[in-house]
Amino acid sequence: MSNEKEKIILTADRPTGRLHIGHYVGSLRNRVALQNTGEFDKIYVMVADAQALTDNFDNPEKVRKNVLEVALDYLAVGLDPSKTTIMVQSEIPELTEMTFYFMNLVTVARLERNPTVKAEIQQKGFGASIPAGFFTYPVSQTADITAFKATTVPVGEDQEPMLEQSREIVRSFNRIYHTDVLVEPEIYLSKNKASLRLPGTDGKAKMSKSIGNCIYLADTPETIHQKVMSMYTDPDHLKVSDPGKVEGNTVFTYLDAFSREEDFPEFLPEYGNLEELKDHYRRGGLGDVKVKKFLEKVLRKTLDPIRERREEYSRHIEDVYEILKAGTAEGRKAAGQTLFEMKDAMKINYFDDASFLEEFKAGLK
Amino acid sequence: MSNEKEKIILTADRPTGRLHIGHYVGSLRNRVALQNTGEFDKIYVMVADAQALTDNFDNPEKVRKNVLEVALDYLAVGLDPSKTTIMVQSEIPELTEMTFYFMNLVTVARLERNPTVKAEIQQKGFGASIPAGFFTYPVSQTADITAFKATTVPVGEDQEPMLEQSREIVRSFNRIYHTDVLVEPEIYLSKNKASLRLPGTDGKAKMSKSIGNCIYLADTPETIHQKVMSMYTDPDHLKVSDPGKVEGNTVFTYLDAFSREEDFPEFLPEYGNLEELKDHYRRGGLGDVKVKKFLEKVLRKTLDPIRERREEYSRHIEDVYEILKAGTAEGRKAAGQTLFEMKDAMKINYFDDASFLEEFKAGLK
Repeated sequence: MSNEKEKIILTADRPTGRLHIGHYVGSLRNRVALQNTGEFDKIYVMVADAQALTDNFDNPEKVRKNVLEVALDYLAVGLDPSKTTIMVQSEIPELTEMTFYFMNLVTVARLERNPTVKAEIQQKGFGASIPAGFFTYPVSQTADITAFKATTVPVGEDQEPMLEQSREIVRSFNRIYHTDVLVEPEIYLSKNKASLRLPGTDGKAKMSKSIGNCIYLADTPETIHQKVMSMYTDPDHLKVSDPGKVEGNTVFTYLDAFSREEDFPEFLPEYGNLEELKDHYRRGGLGDVKVKKFLEKVLRKTLDPIRERREEYSRHIEDVYEILKAGTAEGRKAAGQTLFEMKDAMKINYFDDASFLEEFKAGLK
Repeated sequence: MSNEKEKIILTADRPTGRLHIGHYVGSLRNRVALQNTGEFDKIYVMVADAQALTDNFDNPEKVRKNVLEVALDYLAVGLDPSKTTIMVQSEIPELTEMTFYFMNLVTVARLERNPTVKAEIQQKGFGASIPAGFFTYPVSQTADITAFKATTVPVGEDQEPMLEQSREIVRSFNRIYHTDVLVEPEIYLSKNKASLRLPGTDGKAKMSKSIGNCIYLADTPETIHQKVMSMYTDPDHLKVSDPGKVEGNTVFTYLDAFSREEDFPEFLPEYGNLEELKDHYRRGGLGDVKVKKFLEKVLRKTLDPIRERREEYSRHIEDVYEILKAGTAEGRKAAGQTLFEMKDAMKINYFDDASFLEEFKAGLK
């Protein structure tokens, strides 16, 4: 059945908008690096449209529009369809069937205790009128993970309670149905803690499409220029000669996440590294514009090739559609196999199981 | 899309045991009568094994065993596979996919208010630890009904809140997705109110397998004899000459449900009808044994042909299996069509919808 040695990754994004550099730093960059280690037997990346509908059910158009946008973002950052299976959640109905049976293995009280759900309910303001689909999404997420027998889920630390919920369901299923079909997933935390959460260009903790404080992977050089130049820095750093703060200064937070030592000889040879630049800023005598110009170059070094690949794929959008279709078909096959094994363990696959009729006949005698 | 004039029935039973005369009087008899009116365009009857698993998830063997038992009961009472589609719920995965999307259209608070769920939770003693699958079963029941575009659901009055929940979901879906794909189901209440709920042979309100107070459709004449002879009557009717009560007297309740005027000339010509028999019992001078012997004959007149058909089908259990398979395949086709129309209305059928790619391309320009 399950091969203990296989290392399988599953990650997903909700297609409610194009992906931005927050996604890149927080997860996409890491995913591409994991893909390119060659250490994983399978990598599944899912456009989680069905999950996005749990709180956008009255706006399916928004989700629909962004399925291909997110696929373009995936390909643009370097996810390679020959190494990574890119798939669309709603086109893998096996996931809903698994969700249905997992729902029996978790109590309402347990779902209420989930801190991630609690926080998201607070943030989204559902109050007492939480849709049941949103309330139970940890169960459907468990299906997403276990359908592919994922061992490794690279997500932020805040998702750990969700993973624990998944492991509980896996253990319950395997125990109750005397099987080892399902695999307990482990969280994979990025080593680079500093860059897990990127603030918005306005310094706000969260990047938000409606506020307009995100730099998108699809943004043009002009847009990047404008957004960098209007970025939040240190509000007390009024004159160039004033001493400045680098903590909470978005420009420096972005440099922490993006700049590398080799960027200095290339773009800002007066400084040997980021620490020297920060020291000068702290002392006073270093203007915001100079630092922003450096950040713009650093960002463009990463984002230009991504945008160019994105534009290239956009010109061949039929190919992207075919990549999604093929990946989804591959995903369905894997999920279908897991579901088959699950129903076999539950012994409810009456029409695929010759012993079903034989046992009944034996009982009639 | 939906043809307004079609009249479609959907009913289901949970396969947690063989069916008994309570099921027969409360629903099966009525279903066969509706089938034979010829007034319905389609009749779907479902072995609801997936729903049975919501509170028997740790005992799938019990559910598995009873799938064919219930199918045998269906055929034995006269459901005719050429008129009625008999199907197995868990083999129609489209239902779980529909459930998934319906979950977004109902709030947790609304599910908590459902009196049927409340009562069942109390009765089953789940307390705070209700499985999420059980808590949300009105949503899955809505999928069962709407998948087949059922107009008519012949169930007991106690199920009306469940039907109202289904209608709410149907209205939400059709409103939000600007469609008329889904049909609002109506409850069909049996005219014969007296016979809706048959008590157990011990006089207890509920027939229960574990108490052993049910007469099964599969029971042999010997078993029926024993069960009738030990039935609960009027505990104050000690001597034949004592006046007796017919209210709450199980033997008379059963006669209310089963006896017909023509049974008297055939089995008990001293009385013209049930009222005369009751009057004599009330006056005193009529012994329990005499009434029980009459009931036994009346019951056997109905149950003998049922049991014989059941035995005949048992000898050809492969045919029953094929009937289930064929009915399920037909059900899947109908449910698949409804699901297709639903996803079309939601516009999330990206791989079946040529406009998905075209619209995206238009947006790129």
